[in-house]
Amino acid sequence: MIGIFDSGVGGLTVVKEIFKNLPQYQIIYFGDTARLPYGTKGEAFVKKYSAKITEWLLAKNAKIIIIACNTSSAWASRDLKKKFKNIPIFEMIAPAVEDALASTKNGKIGIIGTPGTIKSKAYQKALKKKNKKLKIYLSSCPLFVPLVEEGMVKGNITEEIIKKYLTPLKNKKIDTLILGCTHYPLLKSAIEKTIDSGIKIINPAESLISKLEKFLKENEGIAKTIKKGKSHQFFFSDEPYNLDKISHLCFRKTIKANIKDPF
Amino acid sequence: MIGIFDSGVGGLTVVKEIFKNLPQYQIIYFGDTARLPYGTKGEAFVKKYSAKITEWLLAKNAKIIIIACNTSSAWASRDLKKKFKNIPIFEMIAPAVEDALASTKNGKIGIIGTPGTIKSKAYQKALKKKNKKLKIYLSSCPLFVPLVEEGMVKGNITEEIIKKYLTPLKNKKIDTLILGCTHYPLLKSAIEKTIDSGIKIINPAESLISKLEKFLKENEGIAKTIKKGKSHQFFFSDEPYNLDKISHLCFRKTIKANIKDPF
Repeated sequence: MIGIFDSGVGGLTVVKEIFKNLPQYQIIYFGDTARLPYGTKGEAFVKKYSAKITEWLLAKNAKIIIIACNTSSAWASRDLKKKFKNIPIFEMIAPAVEDALASTKNGKIGIIGTPGTIKSKAYQKALKKKNKKLKIYLSSCPLFVPLVEEGMVKGNITEEIIKKYLTPLKNKKIDTLILGCTHYPLLKSAIEKTIDSGIKIINPAESLISKLEKFLKENEGIAKTIKKGKSHQFFFSDEPYNLDKISHLCFRKTIKANIKDPF
Repeated sequence: MIGIFDSGVGGLTVVKEIFKNLPQYQIIYFGDTARLPYGTKGEAFVKKYSAKITEWLLAKNAKIIIIACNTSSAWASRDLKKKFKNIPIFEMIAPAVEDALASTKNGKIGIIGTPGTIKSKAYQKALKKKNKKLKIYLSSCPLFVPLVEEGMVKGNITEEIIKKYLTPLKNKKIDTLILGCTHYPLLKSAIEKTIDSGIKIINPAESLISKLEKFLKENEGIAKTIKKGKSHQFFFSDEPYNLDKISHLCFRKTIKANIKDPF
């Protein structure tokens, strides 16, 4: 199985991309709803639980791990790769950074995310490492997650909030914008409509899955060990809030959730 | 000391009322930021951690417990009162219900809160128990907490969101509105401005403190055991998000936070 974890339901936008592009593989999802959101938690906390969850997924027969949570990608991926050396671990940041570099023409890139992701400077550091001359503009958008979880992915209030967060970046003439939180792809249409400026929007879930696709083609031995089929499993450490709304936004149907905190 | 707990920083609006009305007593505050928000968590989870926190506060020499979190008041207060029989335990719901009953003339009462509080029907049940004929109208306002935590307690976006949540209640001609979440008193001015209709707003923190004041006058023996002084202590189980913003909104100054998860 492909193991995927997130702090909550946001990682389902990554599952959506797997279902679209790698539909043969069975997935096991863990959303840490008992401890969500990670975006406002401390670094040590996020590292600790990312490791616990990875171990749990491996025990459940995951052969590949996807860290769907941006905060966890930012703070825990290096530790996890060190701790679980023989397991391919994918995270959200590197693939999106690659795509952003390929996209930008004027070298001005915007990044939006939760306060935790923005504070971690993970995207910013990864971009600067590749090209010191890039101009990076950041905006933390703490109201976006609650908007998505309310199903408010369009309408006046949503557009006003998008304007509030994104006008400063637009004024800086960014030509590329990274959606640095798994919930944000569900606001992509509203963002495109509101900022209306030919800015190329990078959805890290899409970037990640195209990298994973390539990896599985090049590593048939690993690909063969991953269980195929449609018996996907979704685990949450506490009742997920508005799962039905998010699930319908992602899959146009309800998913069956197993609720139990293994920690 | 007076022990107060909440899922996060919202309970500081209750501390604000204590400082205003009972400034002689020393307080010890615990915000369970590692597991916040409680409003979207399950009932068993909230009960479990409310008990753990109460025990911890008592071990730290609290002589009275205030459950500042509405979700915890709704789900855990009965269990806590049973478990800690000899300790006076105050919660947010009963005092606000009393004040709402005294306030309403037309018998139409609105309640707003987090999804957890609203789902628990705690205010509704408590009101109906006192008077079956009351008409109760509910609205869960999941965007209010992030608004407050961003310091967005006024302005266009805030007023639009207030309208979205409160217009249905106003249309039902409620004459009394209970702010069923500790964060909401910081939106009181914006709510009054936006709904502008002579609706009496009940702040459960004020209701609670006036009940506590009365209790301490009537129970001098207990009042004497509570440590007096200004060495207030604030504990959080993880870094509180935007503590400075909330702290300034409540106290016009920063408070010193001790960050450690004892569980």
